[in-house]
This record gives sequence, structure tokens and C-alpha cells, in this order.
Amino acid sequence: MTNYLKYKSIMNKIADVQYSSAVLNWDQETYMPPKGAAFRAQQLATLAGIAHELSTTEELGHLLISLSQDNSLSEKEKRNIKESLKKYNDNKKYTTSFVEELSKSISEAFQAWQEAKKTSNFSLYAPYLEKLVKLKREECKLLGYVEHPYDAMLNQYEPDAKTADLEVLFADVRNQLVAFVKKIAAKPQNNDSFMYLHFDKDKQWEFGVGLLKQMGYDFEAGRQDISSHPFTTNFNSEDVRVTTRTNENNLNEMIWSCIHEGGHALYEQGLPVSEYGLPSGEYISLGIHESQSRLWENNVGRSLPYWNTNFSSLQKIFPENFKNVSTEDFYKAMNIVKPSLIRTSADELTYHFHILIRFEIEKALIQGSIEVKDLPDYWNEKYKEYLGVEVPNDAQGVLQDIHWSHGSFGYFPTYSLGSFYAAQFFAQALKEIPELESEIEKGNTKPLLDWLREKVHIHGKYYTAAELCLFITGEKLNFNYFMAYATKKYSRLYHL
Amino acid sequence: MTNYLKYKSIMNKIADVQYSSAVLNWDQETYMPPKGAAFRAQQLATLAGIAHELSTTEELGHLLISLSQDNSLSEKEKRNIKESLKKYNDNKKYTTSFVEELSKSISEAFQAWQEAKKTSNFSLYAPYLEKLVKLKREECKLLGYVEHPYDAMLNQYEPDAKTADLEVLFADVRNQLVAFVKKIAAKPQNNDSFMYLHFDKDKQWEFGVGLLKQMGYDFEAGRQDISSHPFTTNFNSEDVRVTTRTNENNLNEMIWSCIHEGGHALYEQGLPVSEYGLPSGEYISLGIHESQSRLWENNVGRSLPYWNTNFSSLQKIFPENFKNVSTEDFYKAMNIVKPSLIRTSADELTYHFHILIRFEIEKALIQGSIEVKDLPDYWNEKYKEYLGVEVPNDAQGVLQDIHWSHGSFGYFPTYSLGSFYAAQFFAQALKEIPELESEIEKGNTKPLLDWLREKVHIHGKYYTAAELCLFITGEKLNFNYFMAYATKKYSRLYHL
Repeated sequence: MTNYLKYKSIMNKIADVQYSSAVLNWDQETYMPPKGAAFRAQQLATLAGIAHELSTTEELGHLLISLSQDNSLSEKEKRNIKESLKKYNDNKKYTTSFVEELSKSISEAFQAWQEAKKTSNFSLYAPYLEKLVKLKREECKLLGYVEHPYDAMLNQYEPDAKTADLEVLFADVRNQLVAFVKKIAAKPQNNDSFMYLHFDKDKQWEFGVGLLKQMGYDFEAGRQDISSHPFTTNFNSEDVRVTTRTNENNLNEMIWSCIHEGGHALYEQGLPVSEYGLPSGEYISLGIHESQSRLWENNVGRSLPYWNTNFSSLQKIFPENFKNVSTEDFYKAMNIVKPSLIRTSADELTYHFHILIRFEIEKALIQGSIEVKDLPDYWNEKYKEYLGVEVPNDAQGVLQDIHWSHGSFGYFPTYSLGSFYAAQFFAQALKEIPELESEIEKGNTKPLLDWLREKVHIHGKYYTAAELCLFITGEKLNFNYFMAYATKKYSRLYHL
Repeated sequence: MTNYLKYKSIMNKIADVQYSSAVLNWDQETYMPPKGAAFRAQQLATLAGIAHELSTTEELGHLLISLSQDNSLSEKEKRNIKESLKKYNDNKKYTTSFVEELSKSISEAFQAWQEAKKTSNFSLYAPYLEKLVKLKREECKLLGYVEHPYDAMLNQYEPDAKTADLEVLFADVRNQLVAFVKKIAAKPQNNDSFMYLHFDKDKQWEFGVGLLKQMGYDFEAGRQDISSHPFTTNFNSEDVRVTTRTNENNLNEMIWSCIHEGGHALYEQGLPVSEYGLPSGEYISLGIHESQSRLWENNVGRSLPYWNTNFSSLQKIFPENFKNVSTEDFYKAMNIVKPSLIRTSADELTYHFHILIRFEIEKALIQGSIEVKDLPDYWNEKYKEYLGVEVPNDAQGVLQDIHWSHGSFGYFPTYSLGSFYAAQFFAQALKEIPELESEIEKGNTKPLLDWLREKVHIHGKYYTAAELCLFITGEKLNFNYFMAYATKKYSRLYHL
């Protein structure tokens, strides 16, 4: 066996263990009976430990170093080795005692967060979050960074991203988007009351499955189930599953989770199955992953052509609820802009203020310029400043999101990156496929999916996020595309 | 950490990996999309390999040997060590090359069997089965045996069972049961045509769930799903799942799979959760496992008291189908005895002729007194002799069961053992709980479940099957209990 095949076989074994964990996680969120939870946590911890052991063996290290000097490899193979070696070196930086302490602190913080959120009592959570932030600061040192300690956090989700670049990006959000949203707020609000009538669950489900099929989601290589928080997971690119939730008094939840998760799933279904377990078979970064979900959700799903083809089916399923609603009314209701407290239900513009606030807080926590105890006040001031809303309690404020209790610092910015990449990619798609919108208007999204397959999916992790953006659009990530998209769309919607 | 705690921790880790495999298998049989199959097989093979590695480390070997000489352990702990050491030594007997060759041959044989069954062409399968039988003969040598090579096969599923004892048992089946079934065959047959009317799937499901709840199956620590072949699986004793299937034109399938799998599941839910991963938290043998399913299925589920309480609910759900059917009619229909071709749909008496035939064939194959190529003729002769039926083709004959293609020789006899243990245990329960039948008649099966918990479930693998039988009934396995049960029940049903 050649060294490269040996490497491939080890990577396959690691992937097998990690995807087995993913099956256990999927089951936990969808079908596991309540009492199954205790041992499931232990089983997941064991699999994680085994995957870590397999990922840090001396054998793999030697193999990677030897392969990194092998000039007979193809360009793709070289990229795989480079990427795997980087990950190997990162994995080796963690000591067992650090991993155990972090894992224990996360369990404790997560428990405390659940209780604190339930009772809206930040002080229950604060000491655990403090401990976690301390460990995360240590982790930054351990992983190493060149410019800013927060870079080390960011790069776990968005390799090669820099805090300095994000500061520039979020300055644009602050300067341009805040002003734009103020202009919208000065206009009369559109009506979306018909979205909150009664919508039968099974009929919603049926409609959502139809949307997924229309997008090109392959139900032979995936399935949709119900979970309390919608997510996408995959066990290889031929078994990519989505979940959704239905709220009988709010049609938005099912529609946006189907399209959003569908976008994530199309990326995973499009990764080359022959590259299973290798970087060339994996997604690039969370930002690029999110670009795929946001492109379908916002640029396609919240567009007029999309509802020109789909609204009539929805009307057929819910004739009573939509009897006096036009496609244009529906399109307006899909695109209500209104500052609000909760990130996950925010519109596509004010959403970025939520991320901006978390970015500023995380950066400050990691560099030590703010203390955990001051978080609620800081949070509430920022919400007042950027969104103009009063935070009534911490449950709807600083305690709303799970991420920090999981030790996930550096994750939030990838949500905004996703939207901005999506806008830039979609602008390029419109240029390259002149018939794109008219085809969507006919219910044919295949030209778009083909384009995404060719431009994004089939490459796996061959490119970095920055390289991919350059490869697709000829320039680096540019906030102007998002701003142009927003300006055009919302100027029409709100008569600006 | 004491040595015993170290041992417990290793056993927990092995269990975590094995139960993770069980989750992947459950998913494969219930929800996995079709294209997910290829990598699922690889993921399962990887987990099996890891579990085997963990089960055969030098560290575990040294620990077990040291603990086996530790007199400070409790009786239960000593039993655990003895059992684990035995299993460790068995695991160590397998060379990697043998395991790989066996695994490859099983894959090939399974593929060939599927095709052969589909086309009813035994010759497609024969060469692969021959290869497998050859390997199984090698495995007997490798595992070692004292009296008969087939003992080594049997003991994988039924530890300590002996071919010689089974020969005595099956001689009773041949002598007593064949004659008894002939007497039944001479009588007019009872009517069960109403079992094959149309039964709505959802209503069947609802009724089946009701039966499981009545038995005491804990839906907080388990769930029921649909699969093409009903089974029970568990990931710890607080996550024990059953599956069923519904046939809209045959009510039997759902009812018997619910009660049968429910019996298996009650055993698993009753194993002590604190003994997770240890022999003291595991079932004794497949025969004892089957005794739990058969006791509920046959001794309870096919009894008149059981339907005296449950038939009226069934009538309420399907009023049209049962409007002219009495409880007695229904009870008779549940207990039609009629020789037939297919094991899985056989009645509780002629069922054992199916097992007898497989036992005779397996023994002969393993000791080399019959050749694979002669199997179809041999099979057909035996079916004529014991069941009096003509086998029209190999698909309904020698190719009907999956077991041999999976390399499972020695498995079939545990099905009969289960029924015989069940009859003996149930006779004892009737003695010890005078109100047992009258309570069942009121829909209260709790006294029975409590008794099984105390007599069987909580002990895990503390006893061997033979010891358990002695512990519960004061004597060793005795076919007379089954024969007495059958004689009393069917003499009344068929006016013998």
C-alpha cells in the first residue's frame, strides 16, 4: 500500500467514528426516548475520545510529514496532506488534562445556562461562564495566533479568518446597515398577520417537502424529521439529513427551516463521495456552509420570482388563510424588517446587528477588556444602541443563545459571513446565468444548483474560503454586494 | 483507582462502542435512506474492529488475570471477572486473518443468498455456503470443544449448552410432539378467516402500543418503530427499542411482533442499569432471551385470560371485522395448529419441527456428514417426514432463512430452548402466584412482570442458563412442561 493510501485509510477510520457520533447525535435530537440521555452522553464522549486518539497517533504524524515532502502527489492530494497536517498539529496541541477540564467546564456551564435561562437569572451562569472564558483564553495561547487572540477562536470555524478583517466588515455593517434600517423604520410597516393564522402541521410538512424536492434535495440520500431546533447533519454525502419544526400558528418556522437546512444539505450532498473522510470531501468553513443555506433562504427563498411560482401551491393547500392575499402581499410579509430581541427570528437585515454585538462581546471577553459580570449591562446597552430595543430580561437578552455555554466562541461571525458570501455569489450567478430568475420563476432551480455544484460543492476543501471567493467572483469578500442587494430589494418593498 | 474500577471503565468503553454500533444498526433498519447503505457498512465494520481491539488488549488481559485471583471481590464481581476472562480468551483465539476471511465470506454469502432466494436457485448460493461451512468448521477447532464440534457453535449463543443434551431434547420433540400434532391434524380445523380482513394500519398501531403499555413496557425508556423484520435492540437498559410491522390484510403480524418483541424488551429494560457494560448487566443467553419473548407471546398472549381482557378493545377498534366473533372464536383463531413451509409464520407447536430440521442439518454440516450440495434434497425429505408438506421450491425451502448466510450456525436451537424454558418458568409462576391468571384476566400483568424481574431480569448474567432454571424451578430444563402445556391447551381447543 502506498503512503497516500495508508493515509486515506486512517482518515476513513477517523471519519467512520466521527460520523457514527453524528448518527448518535441525530438520534438524540429526533427519536431518543427521554431516559436514553444519560448513557448517550457517555457513548458520545467515548467516541469523541477514540476519534481524538486516532487523530493524534505517531503513525499518522510520521505519515503526514513524509507525504508533505512527496512531490509525486497531485495538487489535490498535496492540499489534503497540507490540510490534514495542519489539523494534526492543532490536535496535538491539546493536552489530555486541558481537554478533560474544558469538557467538564462545558458540561457544567451548559447545565447552569439552562437553569439561568429558565429563571432569567444571569448570576447562576456567571461563575461557570467566567471559568469557560478563562479556559478559552488559555486555548488561544495553546493554539497560537499572530495578530489577535480571538483569531485562534475564529479559525476553529473559519480557517484563515482574521479579527482585523472582521472589524472592517462589521464597521460597514455599523455604518451602512444601521442607517439603512433607520430609513426603513421611518416607513409604514407591511402586513404579515396572515402568517400567524392556523396552519395544519401535516399540510405544512407536505409543502416543505415539496420545496426541498424543488431545490433538488435528494430524498434517496437523506430524509427530513422533526426536532425542536432544526439542523442538518451528514454521515457521508449520500446520507445527509435535515430536520424542521412546525408551529401551527406561525408558518414562517417551517418554511425558513426547510429552505435554510435544505441549502446546507445540498452542499453536503454535493461533496464528492469518493473523497469521504478527506479534506477534499469536506466543507470549507462554517461561513461557506452558511453561504449555501443563506443563498437559498434569502437570495432565492425571500425573492419575488420564487413565490411567483410557489405561492399558488401554498394557496391551494391553505385556501382559507390566503384567500385575500396576493403574491406581492406574501412577498412583503416574507420580508418584514423590524428590529427585535431574538437573533433566530430576526429578519435578514437586522440579523447582522445581533451578530455584530456578539462579535464585539466575544472579542472583548477573549482579550480581557470586559468582565463576565458586566455582560448583561453591556448587552442591553448595545441592543439599545444598534437595534433600538429595550431588553426586558436576561432570558431574552444575553442568555438567549446556547453557543457560549458550549464553549463556542468565534462561531457567531460565520453567520454574517455566510450572508455576505451568499450575496456576492448570487450576484455572480445572476451574471453568469442570464435566465436564472426567469427559471426560478418557472420553478426550475436546477441551473442554480448546477452552478453551485460546479463552483462550490465539488471542490470540497480544495480552496480556502478566501480563495473560493476569488475563484468564483474574481474578488475578495466585499460587503457592497450585500448592501446593493439589500438596497435594491428593500427600497422597492418600503418605497424608500 | 482499584483494579476492579479499571476493569469496569474498560468494559464501559467497549460497551459504548458496541451500543453505538447498535444505534447505527437500528437506524439502518428503520430510517436510513437507501443510498446511506454503502458507508454504513464501512462505519459498522470500523466500530466492530475498534470494539475487538479494545476487547483484546494486553492491559485488559493482565487486569482480568490479576482480578481472577483477587479474593476480596464480592461473589457478583467474581462472576463478572470469570465471565469476562472467558470471553477475553475466546476473543484472543481469533487471528486477524481469520476474522477478515470470515467477514469477507459472510458478505459474499449474504449477497449470493439474497440473489439465490430471489430466483429460487440454490446453486448460486452453494459455493459460498460451502466456503462458509469450511470456515465455521475451522472456527470450531479454533474455539475448541470437548465433546462435539457443534458445541463450539452453540456456545456462541447458548453458553455451556451441549449438543448431546439437545439431541435428547429434540428426540422428545420428535417422539412426543410429532405424534401429538398428528392427533390435532385428524380433527376439524378451527376458523381464522376474520384475521385476514382489512385492518387499518394506524388503528393496528394504536392497539399494539396499548398491548405494550399493558405489559409494562416503559415508553420513556424505549420506543416502537416500523421495520421490515421486527426486532428488539438496546443501547443501555434505559433505551430499549422495539420494531413491528403491520400488514393490512393480516392482523397476526402486528399483534405477535408487538408481544414477542415486547417480551424481549422487558428483559432488557429490567437489566440493572448500574451494571452497564458488565456481564451482571447483560442477558444470559439467546435461549433465556427467547424464553422472555415466548413466555409473553405464547403462555400469556395466546391464552384465553389474556383475550378475555383484550378482545373487547380490539372489537371496539375494528367493530365491523369482529361483529360476529366471540372471544372464544378469537382465541381459537390465535391457536390454529397446521404444518406449514415457513418457520417465521409457524404455530407454536409445529414451529419446533422447523428448528429440529435445522438442528439436524447444522450438526451434520459441522461434523462433515452431509455436503452443502445435498442440502435441498435433504431439507425437502425432512419437511415431508416431520411436517408432511411438499416443498415447492428452494426459496420457500432451504433458502428461506437468513441465518446461515450470516454465518450463524448454532443459533436456531435457541428458539426452541426459549419456548421450553418459557413453559417451565410459566408453570412455576402459576404455582407461586395463585392469582396470576385472574389478574391477567383483569388486564393486570404486573404480578407476572414483577416475578420475572425478580427471578430473571435483575440477575443479569450472574447465573448460567442451567443455573437460572434450577434457581427458578428447582430442576433442570424439562421438556415435559412444554408438552403438558401443549397437551392441556390443545386438547381443549381441538377436542382431543
